[in-house]
Amino acid sequence: MIDRIPILRIRDLLLVSIQADLHDILVEQLQSDILKELERKSARGLVLDISALNILDTYTARAFVHTAQMARLMGTRTIVSGMTPAIAMTLTEMGFSAGGFETALDLESALTALSTQDADED
Amino acid sequence: MIDRIPILRIRDLLLVSIQADLHDILVEQLQSDILKELERKSARGLVLDISALNILDTYTARAFVHTAQMARLMGTRTIVSGMTPAIAMTLTEMGFSAGGFETALDLESALTALSTQDADED
Repeated sequence: MIDRIPILRIRDLLLVSIQADLHDILVEQLQSDILKELERKSARGLVLDISALNILDTYTARAFVHTAQMARLMGTRTIVSGMTPAIAMTLTEMGFSAGGFETALDLESALTALSTQDADED
Repeated sequence: MIDRIPILRIRDLLLVSIQADLHDILVEQLQSDILKELERKSARGLVLDISALNILDTYTARAFVHTAQMARLMGTRTIVSGMTPAIAMTLTEMGFSAGGFETALDLESALTALSTQDADED
């Protein structure tokens, strides 16, 4: 059992590889760690990679929305990458709208999206 | 409990964020997954990030050596990043020589090392 999820930095991007179900404590710890890392050093983007997850409950999906909102307030754009078709179907069937966070097919697409934003916004 | 560790691809680099103790099954699964990914599409480098680990036993350290050797045979250079001072001390005290794999202070240093290799070797 892990007690915190590492936040990896690649230049001005943060990357979190989520490999375990995010129970309450883990989600709060992760959110707090992300905000502390953003306070320490700003980041242009945050990628939450969930390619390792087979299931994603609405609690965790909502936690991602909150994390994205928090990061946005700290000036950072969040992308959730690696969602499996099964998770996409389940979330949709459960009435969860993905409007709360951006998504990308995989990590690479997410990094590309965050790079191209550069030209548009910066 | 996770049953496999995701292998993330960033262009021609593979990144594995190791967050849980690597018991036997997980190590074998990871090694097999890495080799399959290399067979699918070659990679210049492989980064095993262990910044989330507080302890690293010699079994796992040896598994990293084997993984690095396997990846080398498939044309890929392996770097272990994010070793804590505590782990470095323990491994050294237990007589484990780090000669079996390259190390870097953090993910970013590892990626930089793999980029600069470009100019030297490719």
